[in-house]
Amino acid sequence: MIEPATENAAALDLTAIDAIRQGDRRALARAVTLVESTRPDHRTRAAALLAAALPLSGKSIRIGISGVPGVGKSTFIETFGLQAIARGHRVAVLAVDPSSQRTGGSILGDKTRMEMLSRHPSAFIRPSPAGNTLGGVARRTREAMLLVEAAGYDVVIVETVGVGQSETAVADMVDLFLLLLPPAGGDELQGIKKGIVELADLIVVNKADGPLESAALHAQAEYRHALTLLRPADPAWTVPVLRCSAVTGTGMTEIWQSIADYQTALGPTAGLDRRRDQQARAWLWSEIREGLLSTFQADPQVRRRLPELEAAVRTGWVTPAAAAEQLLQSFRAG
Amino acid sequence: MIEPATENAAALDLTAIDAIRQGDRRALARAVTLVESTRPDHRTRAAALLAAALPLSGKSIRIGISGVPGVGKSTFIETFGLQAIARGHRVAVLAVDPSSQRTGGSILGDKTRMEMLSRHPSAFIRPSPAGNTLGGVARRTREAMLLVEAAGYDVVIVETVGVGQSETAVADMVDLFLLLLPPAGGDELQGIKKGIVELADLIVVNKADGPLESAALHAQAEYRHALTLLRPADPAWTVPVLRCSAVTGTGMTEIWQSIADYQTALGPTAGLDRRRDQQARAWLWSEIREGLLSTFQADPQVRRRLPELEAAVRTGWVTPAAAAEQLLQSFRAG
Repeated sequence: MIEPATENAAALDLTAIDAIRQGDRRALARAVTLVESTRPDHRTRAAALLAAALPLSGKSIRIGISGVPGVGKSTFIETFGLQAIARGHRVAVLAVDPSSQRTGGSILGDKTRMEMLSRHPSAFIRPSPAGNTLGGVARRTREAMLLVEAAGYDVVIVETVGVGQSETAVADMVDLFLLLLPPAGGDELQGIKKGIVELADLIVVNKADGPLESAALHAQAEYRHALTLLRPADPAWTVPVLRCSAVTGTGMTEIWQSIADYQTALGPTAGLDRRRDQQARAWLWSEIREGLLSTFQADPQVRRRLPELEAAVRTGWVTPAAAAEQLLQSFRAG
Repeated sequence: MIEPATENAAALDLTAIDAIRQGDRRALARAVTLVESTRPDHRTRAAALLAAALPLSGKSIRIGISGVPGVGKSTFIETFGLQAIARGHRVAVLAVDPSSQRTGGSILGDKTRMEMLSRHPSAFIRPSPAGNTLGGVARRTREAMLLVEAAGYDVVIVETVGVGQSETAVADMVDLFLLLLPPAGGDELQGIKKGIVELADLIVVNKADGPLESAALHAQAEYRHALTLLRPADPAWTVPVLRCSAVTGTGMTEIWQSIADYQTALGPTAGLDRRRDQQARAWLWSEIREGLLSTFQADPQVRRRLPELEAAVRTGWVTPAAAAEQLLQSFRAG
């Protein structure tokens, strides 16, 4: 079900983690709201809650799904999610969209999206947290992922809008990154941002139905060819290019099978665990770097000197290295 | 000419910049050695020298050249450089290769490479500076670039080995990034690291001669097709895929023309100046981030607590955000 992003976090109490693991949806929604808050007292409580959730987390398959607007992402996630539920899973859908507004997220705020999935008791759908920086939005989504895992959701889908830097952030928090493509080739595909195809562990051409079926077949062949040329082989996994129709359900079983193959091919002891280890370490250092940069940018001496030094660099009066050294000296002295 | 990386920097005096701009090659070589040094007193002198060089720099076309080992990079740079000299230019060749050793650089240390170019009075060839971190090597190459420009070299080639992260660093310091590819397709191209093709402003299939000529033609067509599929159009520039033989000289004129077209298409006031502005700003912030991270990593409190917290993150006992917060608190208090 869709939970509003505006729940009151104050009602959260110390038994929250028990309520969450016992399947209390309101407790889960409040907990996610808490980790989304930037208020210092909320951050302290969120840290305690996450510490309690952490040992219960990690037992899901984490799937990132991206695709340009119009590719049929909502319909795909609805069909895919309902299929997973029919197989006995519980499905959480989170979103990373730093362009979303305070009102609740542009890509998952619309309650008419994923109508059947959003009403299903085995599904938990959460709009993208508000925030201007990708780093902040990504952190809150990573933390929400730990909470929904603690609540027993074992298929976690992280959706992103497919036109910005957010894909890399999503690929860095999931086990498998699925790229949804339209049944088109050549010029019509120019809208896909460079580098995104390279992130994909699984590529799916959607809308393989009706008059677009042959176009989808053609696009599938073109992508297979392009991947041979441009992507290096991973010893354990060759990126499949599948096609489906989220509307008719054609090809959905093959996608599910392909994800299972991926888990088998990488294996929990070899590939996936190592990938999660690396992600945790990368997340740690990304938090450290962001924290250092915030401290630096908030430093009064740095704020005073930065404008002139940035201008001096742009006009070529000072080398970037010299300007950085001066700013760092101000910072260390402050 | 190739200048050894082991020149004695101590002989440098305050008139160094005058000697450099008057074409004194030994003064230039000593100055490059000085900016390559990490000794604090050398860094101070290097900063003064770079401040003097900066107003004289920037009047070159900066070309990054990358390609996997065996693609014929040395022969290509020799032929290309000699052609530029024949057109009245002065050519400097620098290298970014963080894998190179203290002994003078693995990719440009071999004096039998670029034999004719290295002996030409209008050429200045410099091995990759020693160093373990890409950031350090890239900074010193950026600074060497300012020095050779101050010395009047107006075609600056920055070479990289094409198998690591160094391509992004090179693309971030040049006006045009040229990717050299072998006359092969499909599986044989798997060795090209993902993302590198996306950095290219110009792609050249080399070895289009003798028995490989038809393979080169075929590879050229395949790359053109792949680029249509995977790379978004830049409004001002469509990445050309050319072919050449650095041995016979075939196609070299077209490459030169294509670089001229690129400069015209982007234009100094619109594209190239903006690109250099952005590069200078990105360089400033990259220096700041590296400086902050060094300070952080050298902090005694951080060093004491990092091992246990990193282990706690990896085993899932602490969230990365919580571990980062604890380390940042130790750092700010220290």
